[in-house]
Amino acid sequence: MTDDQPQFDLITLGETMLRLMPPHGLRLGQSTTLDMQFGGAEANVAANLARLGRRVSWWSRLPDNPLGRQLAASLRGQGVDTSHILWADNERLGLYFVEQGEPPRGVQVWYDRAHSAASRMQPEHVAAAWLESARWLHLTGITPALSDSCRATVEDVMRRARAQRLRISFDVNYRALLWSAEAAAAVLSPLCAAADIAFVALRDAHNLFDARGDRAEVARQLQDRWGGIVVVTDGDQGAAAYDGSAAHDVEALPAVVTDRMGAGDAFASGVIDRLLDDAPLAEALRFGAALAALKLTIPGDVACVTREEVRRVLDRSASSLRR
Amino acid sequence: MTDDQPQFDLITLGETMLRLMPPHGLRLGQSTTLDMQFGGAEANVAANLARLGRRVSWWSRLPDNPLGRQLAASLRGQGVDTSHILWADNERLGLYFVEQGEPPRGVQVWYDRAHSAASRMQPEHVAAAWLESARWLHLTGITPALSDSCRATVEDVMRRARAQRLRISFDVNYRALLWSAEAAAAVLSPLCAAADIAFVALRDAHNLFDARGDRAEVARQLQDRWGGIVVVTDGDQGAAAYDGSAAHDVEALPAVVTDRMGAGDAFASGVIDRLLDDAPLAEALRFGAALAALKLTIPGDVACVTREEVRRVLDRSASSLRR
Amino acid sequence: MTDDQPQFDLITLGETMLRLMPPHGLRLGQSTTLDMQFGGAEANVAANLARLGRRVSWWSRLPDNPLGRQLAASLRGQGVDTSHILWADNERLGLYFVEQGEPPRGVQVWYDRAHSAASRMQPEHVAAAWLESARWLHLTGITPALSDSCRATVEDVMRRARAQRLRISFDVNYRALLWSAEAAAAVLSPLCAAADIAFVALRDAHNLFDARGDRAEVARQLQDRWGGIVVVTDGDQGAAAYDGSAAHDVEALPAVVTDRMGAGDAFASGVIDRLLDDAPLAEALRFGAALAALKLTIPGDVACVTREEVRRVLDRSASSLRR
Amino acid sequence: MTDDQPQFDLITLGETMLRLMPPHGLRLGQSTTLDMQFGGAEANVAANLARLGRRVSWWSRLPDNPLGRQLAASLRGQGVDTSHILWADNERLGLYFVEQGEPPRGVQVWYDRAHSAASRMQPEHVAAAWLESARWLHLTGITPALSDSCRATVEDVMRRARAQRLRISFDVNYRALLWSAEAAAAVLSPLCAAADIAFVALRDAHNLFDARGDRAEVARQLQDRWGGIVVVTDGDQGAAAYDGSAAHDVEALPAVVTDRMGAGDAFASGVIDRLLDDAPLAEALRFGAALAALKLTIPGDVACVTREEVRRVLDRSASSLRR
Amino acid sequence: MTDDQPQFDLITLGETMLRLMPPHGLRLGQSTTLDMQFGGAEANVAANLARLGRRVSWWSRLPDNPLGRQLAASLRGQGVDTSHILWADNERLGLYFVEQGEPPRGVQVWYDRAHSAASRMQPEHVAAAWLESARWLHLTGITPALSDSCRATVEDVMRRARAQRLRISFDVNYRALLWSAEAAAAVLSPLCAAADIAFVALRDAHNLFDARGDRAEVARQLQDRWGGIVVVTDGDQGAAAYDGSAAHDVEALPAVVTDRMGAGDAFASGVIDRLLDDAPLAEALRFGAALAALKLTIPGDVACVTREEVRRVLDRSASSLRR
Amino acid sequence: MTDDQPQFDLITLGETMLRLMPPHGLRLGQSTTLDMQFGGAEANVAANLARLGRRVSWWSRLPDNPLGRQLAASLRGQGVDTSHILWADNERLGLYFVEQGEPPRGVQVWYDRAHSAASRMQPEHVAAAWLESARWLHLTGITPALSDSCRATVEDVMRRARAQRLRISFDVNYRALLWSAEAAAAVLSPLCAAADIAFVALRDAHNLFDARGDRAEVARQLQDRWGGIVVVTDGDQGAAAYDGSAAHDVEALPAVVTDRMGAGDAFASGVIDRLLDDAPLAEALRFGAALAALKLTIPGDVACVTREEVRRVLDRSASSLRR
Repeated sequence: MTDDQPQFDLITLGETMLRLMPPHGLRLGQSTTLDMQFGGAEANVAANLARLGRRVSWWSRLPDNPLGRQLAASLRGQGVDTSHILWADNERLGLYFVEQGEPPRGVQVWYDRAHSAASRMQPEHVAAAWLESARWLHLTGITPALSDSCRATVEDVMRRARAQRLRISFDVNYRALLWSAEAAAAVLSPLCAAADIAFVALRDAHNLFDARGDRAEVARQLQDRWGGIVVVTDGDQGAAAYDGSAAHDVEALPAVVTDRMGAGDAFASGVIDRLLDDAPLAEALRFGAALAALKLTIPGDVACVTREEVRRVLDRSASSLRR
Repeated sequence: MTDDQPQFDLITLGETMLRLMPPHGLRLGQSTTLDMQFGGAEANVAANLARLGRRVSWWSRLPDNPLGRQLAASLRGQGVDTSHILWADNERLGLYFVEQGEPPRGVQVWYDRAHSAASRMQPEHVAAAWLESARWLHLTGITPALSDSCRATVEDVMRRARAQRLRISFDVNYRALLWSAEAAAAVLSPLCAAADIAFVALRDAHNLFDARGDRAEVARQLQDRWGGIVVVTDGDQGAAAYDGSAAHDVEALPAVVTDRMGAGDAFASGVIDRLLDDAPLAEALRFGAALAALKLTIPGDVACVTREEVRRVLDRSASSLRR
Repeated sequence: MTDDQPQFDLITLGETMLRLMPPHGLRLGQSTTLDMQFGGAEANVAANLARLGRRVSWWSRLPDNPLGRQLAASLRGQGVDTSHILWADNERLGLYFVEQGEPPRGVQVWYDRAHSAASRMQPEHVAAAWLESARWLHLTGITPALSDSCRATVEDVMRRARAQRLRISFDVNYRALLWSAEAAAAVLSPLCAAADIAFVALRDAHNLFDARGDRAEVARQLQDRWGGIVVVTDGDQGAAAYDGSAAHDVEALPAVVTDRMGAGDAFASGVIDRLLDDAPLAEALRFGAALAALKLTIPGDVACVTREEVRRVLDRSASSLRR
Repeated sequence: MTDDQPQFDLITLGETMLRLMPPHGLRLGQSTTLDMQFGGAEANVAANLARLGRRVSWWSRLPDNPLGRQLAASLRGQGVDTSHILWADNERLGLYFVEQGEPPRGVQVWYDRAHSAASRMQPEHVAAAWLESARWLHLTGITPALSDSCRATVEDVMRRARAQRLRISFDVNYRALLWSAEAAAAVLSPLCAAADIAFVALRDAHNLFDARGDRAEVARQLQDRWGGIVVVTDGDQGAAAYDGSAAHDVEALPAVVTDRMGAGDAFASGVIDRLLDDAPLAEALRFGAALAALKLTIPGDVACVTREEVRRVLDRSASSLRR
Repeated sequence: MTDDQPQFDLITLGETMLRLMPPHGLRLGQSTTLDMQFGGAEANVAANLARLGRRVSWWSRLPDNPLGRQLAASLRGQGVDTSHILWADNERLGLYFVEQGEPPRGVQVWYDRAHSAASRMQPEHVAAAWLESARWLHLTGITPALSDSCRATVEDVMRRARAQRLRISFDVNYRALLWSAEAAAAVLSPLCAAADIAFVALRDAHNLFDARGDRAEVARQLQDRWGGIVVVTDGDQGAAAYDGSAAHDVEALPAVVTDRMGAGDAFASGVIDRLLDDAPLAEALRFGAALAALKLTIPGDVACVTREEVRRVLDRSASSLRR
Repeated sequence: MTDDQPQFDLITLGETMLRLMPPHGLRLGQSTTLDMQFGGAEANVAANLARLGRRVSWWSRLPDNPLGRQLAASLRGQGVDTSHILWADNERLGLYFVEQGEPPRGVQVWYDRAHSAASRMQPEHVAAAWLESARWLHLTGITPALSDSCRATVEDVMRRARAQRLRISFDVNYRALLWSAEAAAAVLSPLCAAADIAFVALRDAHNLFDARGDRAEVARQLQDRWGGIVVVTDGDQGAAAYDGSAAHDVEALPAVVTDRMGAGDAFASGVIDRLLDDAPLAEALRFGAALAALKLTIPGDVACVTREEVRRVLDRSASSLRR
């Protein structure tokens, strides 16, 4: 990297799907309207960071039809660059139906994503110019589960990004409906090892990577294997991180939950945002926890907040500690 | 029962009314739209069982106008047989206005049900062929409160069903806005005694039937009087049952409540469903508790779930116990 | 009338019902929400005149429940005095279901108004103080059709109003679902004769009163029978009036129709408004036509407009004529 | 077939898809909610006839998921038998996105129907018992366009139905987005010839079958080729029919259009309904025209009307002619 | 004042603004519709008391445009007299945008109220006749913060009311977005001292008036300074009051919160209502607590309840204590 | 212009306001929700051209609050560059309330735009870099009416743009609520003369510029005065243009109107789009007419269409002419 600043702070790629959801907690079959949004872990991170003022670009393969264009417009409106998207004729956008249900019902998802344009991405679709335009690359463990060509694309992009000395974050994001824990572990473990920072849920660490113990112990074990920074998220509880020398822990901030979706992406976004400024890891975890807490109060996948609003939450929380 | 299987697993009759409710917890007077549903304890049981795959028929007297037809279509869509309904010209459908309010406001109901087509049902309206078409009859203590002819119909149908050796369930469902506790007790006690299984809320057992003590004691006392199986429901707490020889108890499953309406009907539906398969009473109570817990998370009166979904709740709950 | 100005410019009485209507032109059975309004010809006139700045009082017998109170609040919000309403315990508000359908479907109505509080009004319910509080009384031919006591009330009120030298307007408003043309004609003809000004639709003039010919001829024939002023309305075409000496005619103003309901009431309101100021009949008809045209563009029964807005329509229409 | 009346008046099969549509004439990209309905020409005919009181069964291959079950429930609620549906695990429901736009924009459709459960129907999936349960079979030219196996199924079912002496109606319903006019003509012409009554739009007759002239001439030309009854529909204008001996024509009834979708299916439904009673062809065309006119005033694909309401439209139309 | 009863039980004045709020907890920027209400502390008190049957008049300066008129109609519908409002041409209604967010997000408000018609009220705008028409005057600490002329108006009105021996209540209602704690304290302290009863939040008592300790101690300290009755409200906890001789305390009633807005106004309304009947202060506090608890369950600013419903809450609460 | 392509095809500046509108044709006072959009003639042109694939930048002065940011996001989502916007602290966004009413009611607007951030734009706020970034500048006659500094800004920007040899379009867009015809004519006439192409409504040409005759004559008269190209729009009828040598005329395309707003902006956008490609003026007028016709079928201010969709309309229209 020269002293010229690259065009983007962060680039990311993956599949974003049309999300169709009955309103007001109704079940499919009870409603004759569906709420229409777009959902994808990488796009969520891109939107979160763009709202904080970061220059971010998201890449995927999209059908050149009204749905694909609406998806791109939605991201662009949030400040994400969409100029590198690869447009495909006569293909489909993957979609899924979601029901939001309280316990013991739980959230249920029905995927209809086979044959999507994104699932047909190839390594050669990702332009060198785009990879050279940023200083940070974010990937997740969802993409390699979509198809062989998607897996090859993620592996190839990561290899090229390392060669160009981009910093790389990788969020495991295991999806049991897409592949087995064994298959996932085999593919994702090398990707975690190749990343500068890996995010993994405590539950996934147990099931996929045979890590044992609480979040702090798990972070230490996985860092031993993968190097870099390992952040272990623990749902409503908090998160732990280990960077090979120091262990850090953050409690989740108290929040009245309106919508759980996207809270993990918000946490990762917050951590990455501070590391983009080379802030200490402990500060990054706190920032991530604040962004996640705010996200929990906001309907939808994205943490629609300003940096100032995150700061205010952190200040209040700090002042509470002092009393 | 011969080796010919009867056409229906269960038949039930009663009044179902148009329910008009301001949306979003608003009060009447705050809203200019009303949500429009149909509400009736027996129809809820019919729909719950049909959704679990049971062959169920519901009978009533309905006005032959768009509201009556919409009511029938709604049940038919849920899988309930409506072919025996008695259609009446130039009559009205009973209706009620409901406000859903949190404590201390509480739910409030304004009935406008006088002179309804259903309140004019007569014993001779109920065809023998329909009564012969099933192996189980379900009735509630609401119907006898509607009019003299309704009371006579319930008593007559129960007598005829017993003569034909149908199994009979009876849910006390005391409605203080319709009659006094004394009047209700006098009519309902013999009906409970005539049923194979009686459901009664702990509060009603105290107020109507002078039973004393906790749910277990009350179940025992009432079974002494009525014979058969007595199930005493205890709101958010759980339920107890006594069948003359063994006492059973089930805790309510933890649930985040979206809509309380219909939870009692779901519980009864679940118990009946298992008894239709001659399952042990303890298993029936657990199934009922699971169905009720799911209902609490679903807007509306009906437990819109599949048998598979109930099973999953029971399995999770069982596995929690094992740990 | 002394030089003391009476409290109200106009008083009126009648039944107003809850109107329940599926939205967006749907049929009952296609929608699970209902739009909730209140509909009554006399209340429409009261609201129209109050919006034009007139001091108006509306009287009826209403159930003292949330629906009755909401009805009164709705009128009060529009500026109509509701302080004389007679509140009844444990009674019901009449209601009706409406479908708005384009031709050839047409509007359909299902009444559920039997046993309403209003249908039980009695002559002695109407206080002398209220009748003395105004200089104009407006009545319609709907009220006498509701019950014997309603008919007696209308006849008695009209008699007392004449004795107190109030000016009286009467709108025939024949409703075929409530009574036969013969029964209606027998009751309504004397009421028209007793009024200072009678409004009648051309179609009703043909069917009830055996008048023949176009609106101008019909106005003349009926004025011969009834005296006073007779205004014959001719739907989308216009209206004619005869006062015993001069004939007047007004064309309907061109309007793009949004909602036909209440256009006739708006026309009558406009005519009455100008006559309250002793304006010439021709001017009153033009003002009524303008108010009706505005009403056609507004959803709901009431012409929600200011006097200034009516004036602007009249000026534009006048200037168009000049060119 | 014995002299016992068959179970159903009419059976029909085809694909029904999930239809997703932005509300209020908005474009995709302008709305964040979608109206959710189910659309299929054969299911529309089934629902129309069931609403008129006919006993109708609809068959298809459906995914056993909430969408498939909701589709079946929707038809069942309208009175259509759904008990023969073939349920498929782990398959998808075809879907399409529709925008309703006025001219010059026009209606636009984006299909996402490849790989649907219905497109995989096979001739052997259609049970003999179902085919024997009715006296009339209705098919359309959409199904053969979906896949080779769908085409084979339609051809096989039609052959078997003829062998069992069912009466057969066939609606050409050419869909240019699915296949070319040439391919369609080659497949559909023999199917029309095999049917007792064929419906074809004038435009399709011109483009696919090289018929020339106005609707009357086209009906005569195609009847010469295919035999039986040929009905040529002419959009907003009317329809002509020829049965080899007599020519009939019906003008479209005047209607203010609310929703054009399903008007053609309503017309065919009305014609079939009267032919089920062996009414004269002229009467059948008039009934079809009345049903289509009513449909045009109703949002959605189905003519939600009663037989009585159709009769009223016909009577009014007849009486208008008399004056 | 003669021995004639004055026209109104209570009069109040202040600014009411248009409140625009995205629905369903969404953020501005997530919604394309806004819920439209009117919000103002004094108007809330007026509406609450009118709903309890009190004769109440509200005064302000309003723009004579559709928004101003809609505001007045809304209050009038709730039973508040609006006949003294001063209408201003070519002025604007203040407005604010609100987001309702759960913690840690919190409620956020963006005001756009500069140059509003109300902010230009002058002492001489308030008619003597209006001030003489009641026996109680209610004011708040919001109005003096709006402009110099508003401050002057409040001070002048309070002086005149004292001269006419009206009873005066004053609610501190400190708004940090409008002025500093210091500026507010300097203006509000004399107004509290001039009132017969002052309401102040515990937090404001700490920050503005340097009172120390819990609510009971604070009430005593401030009563020492101001005389009269001082009521210190303590959010979800309850309230304390001191009248110079006796101390009273009330616990907040348990309530499931639907909407926090307006709960403080409801509490003050309840206290004032009972004092209007010269009830003991302890009873007034309990009534206020019950009204506030009901308000918390109702969407919007106003406690839409009847006196009977408040009584029922108090009775239940009392009976719970007895057991 | 060198062979370097400038960054943008077109730049434009002006005020965009928050537009609040009751839904479904209701009047303010009938609705408790408001549809929230952003409206501004220049932003409409920017969005229309961006949707056609043009690189467009819009400039204004906006408050740095959620409303200002939402406005920018909305434009960015449509593909308009917003990176040059000048953000202002503690200022307000202008807003207006609109009622859409059919004739004779008509559209009514209530502005609340005084003191807006945009009305305080200054000539020096417009950066040279931005002015140098494009080859076309679009301005309207609304901006100079907002304030003295706005007028100065428009005049200065136009002067600088001419110096840099940008092509300039100017749309008169006279707003009678903002200034008199005389004042407007004095300011706008020189601006029209300074533009390469001026758009003016026939009505404004009559009232402001004393042009006489039909659109063709008016175009010729004004071109004599101003030079360049003058396009005279004639509402639903069509438009005429004169460029000093040749006269062109286009008929409006037939369209069923859903929403009239923005049709004029769409027409101008279409004309400009073709002139950006140096197409003949006649072709540009036809393209503008097609875009305007499509806009009329789309709710909202913007012609949400693709270039392909415009082409299809033009082709159909051409082919219709051939027959």
